[in-house]
Parts: sequence; structure tokens; C-alpha cells
Amino acid sequence: MSARRPLHTWERLSAEIVYECRIFSLRRDRSRFSRDDAEHEFHVLESPDWCNIIPLTADQHVVMVRQFRHGLRAYTLEVPGGMIDADDPSPLVAARREMVEESGYESDRVEPLGVVHPNPAIQTNRCHSFVAYEVERRHVPRFDSTEETEVVLVPLTRIPELMRSGEITHALVIVAFQWLALRGR
Amino acid sequence: MSARRPLHTWERLSAEIVYECRIFSLRRDRSRFSRDDAEHEFHVLESPDWCNIIPLTADQHVVMVRQFRHGLRAYTLEVPGGMIDADDPSPLVAARREMVEESGYESDRVEPLGVVHPNPAIQTNRCHSFVAYEVERRHVPRFDSTEETEVVLVPLTRIPELMRSGEITHALVIVAFQWLALRGR
Repeated sequence: MSARRPLHTWERLSAEIVYECRIFSLRRDRSRFSRDDAEHEFHVLESPDWCNIIPLTADQHVVMVRQFRHGLRAYTLEVPGGMIDADDPSPLVAARREMVEESGYESDRVEPLGVVHPNPAIQTNRCHSFVAYEVERRHVPRFDSTEETEVVLVPLTRIPELMRSGEITHALVIVAFQWLALRGR
Repeated sequence: MSARRPLHTWERLSAEIVYECRIFSLRRDRSRFSRDDAEHEFHVLESPDWCNIIPLTADQHVVMVRQFRHGLRAYTLEVPGGMIDADDPSPLVAARREMVEESGYESDRVEPLGVVHPNPAIQTNRCHSFVAYEVERRHVPRFDSTEETEVVLVPLTRIPELMRSGEITHALVIVAFQWLALRGR
């Protein structure tokens, strides 16, 4: 077995959108592997970037939202988040908008935490995480035709326990809390 | 605005697979919202559960793999992982198999870390994370027709720095490290 050697490359021969819906387009790529010149098909979801945000009250509670998720067909406990719309001027503005819409809470101090790829194997997009400090309830949550949330205040110190117990299971929500832990809160 | 009140429910009226490929089936649901009896369409990816595993050497290095990811069309740095096959007897066995195939490293002590939903909004499946202690290189990595990895040993203490610098960006890999941090390593 050789030591470290350069990896082979993939040349994309064609790309075709095979299905489209509101939240993503499904793309089928045909690519050639330089290792053996064989051609293979790969399916990729194209979607806008996503965002989420940890709203923290002055007394260190996280403003979480309970909502129905159609992937699981069940209610989940998450922080606010969603798709970055084409007319959102920035990921930060999008995250703040989602926080206000889903929870009614606002903040004058929103800061970026980090950016990840939800799944580089099959998705093109990124997820931008933010934290909002000293949030206050200033609005009434505003739902679109398919949205509805219940706001739940959770002490920040209880988040690890809610992960372990399976109450918080959304990978991208857990990533946001990991970013927050990395900055030392 | 009322105080805490029960959320409305979604009744699924129909479900249809609209596209299928090797790694998922795309399902279109039609569901009725009890808030206003309106009907809406939702798209959901059905796939087998996934797994990933943090292989730790006796001297606290993580055995990571660099590989080409077709969602990004770029190389990423990840821990071993993949799909749990129908003939894998358990998620743990699947994770161990992926570790051996992608890195050649083996361990006699593999332990479960936790389970998450990669994305409950649009995916049905879960991702199971594991840690393998005192791993040793016992095999030659075994690639299928589209796979190739380069093994990279990274000190465990450098993981936060590699997240911050954008070298590690896969959300599910970050979740695995968050689970590991929660158990106190």
C-alpha cells in the first residue's frame, strides 16, 4: 500500500434537473472518475442556503419553538430557522426575520456563529448559525399558511440534557449549540 | 394572544413516491391542516438511516478521511460514515464496517454516542453516531466503484480549530464530535 498519494478526480459530463418543488430542485449529474474512466450517476439537492438562530434571554434561557415537521410527521423542539429567501439582504437578516416570525422575540445584538454544510454528499447548500443576545418578546409570531409554532423557554444549561434524552434531535440545531459552546457562550 | 394552547394537527391524505434513486426516494405528501382545513403539498426524502463513527487512536488522534463529495463537487474532511445497509445487523456494525472500509482502522471497543435527525423538515431518517477507542490500522481500505479516501490523522484537540477554520464543515460530523464532548471524552 502506497503512502499518501493524490486522489483521483471527477469530471462532470452532464447535469439535469429531474424534479422541482418549492424547497429544492433535484439534480442528476453524470460524472467520470479518473481512476478508471467509468461514468456514474449522482443525485444532488439544490436549495438556497438555510439559517438558524439561538435566541438567548438576559437570564440565559433559549427561546425554542415546537412545530410540526413533515419529514418525521411529528412535533420537534428546535430553535428558529429556515430558508434564506432571495430578497433577504444577508443570512443574518434572514435569521433575525425567522426568529421574529416564529417566536415574536427580537434582539438588538445578533452575531454570527458559524457556517456548515448540512450534507455535502447530496446537498449543495450551507446552513448559517447565529446567536441573538438579550432577546425580548416584542412581536406576535407571524405564521404563513403552513406554519405554527409554540414558544418554549428552556434554560441554556438544560440543552445537553435535552439532547441526551432525545427531546432535541435536529442535527442543525445541535450544530448551532456546538458553535455557541465553542465561543464560550 | 392566548397563552400556551395546543397546536393544530396535520392529517395526511395521500403519499406518492415521485422519484427514486440509489440513495433515497422522493415522496410527495398531501396533508390537511386542522387550523383552516386547507390542503398542502410536502416533499420528503425517504432513506435508510445513516451512521458515522469517530475512530480514536490510543494517543488521541482522530482517523479522518478526505473524499470527494458530489453535493459540493469538492473534497471534504470527515469521519467515516455512510448508509446503514439492509443486511447490516445493527447501526453499530454498519459504523464499524464503514470505518474499516474507508480507513482500514479497526477497534475492539466501539460505543454508541447518540442519534439525531439530519433534517426532520424534509427527511425521515436518523443518523447514529459512534466512537471507536484505541483504533489500529489492521486493513487496507476497500473502496467500491465510486469511492476513494485519503486517511488523515488529526489530534482530537485540533477539532474545534478545524471547525472554526472551515476545514470540517459536515453538520453530521460536527454532531458526532458534540456527542463525544458531551460524554467528556
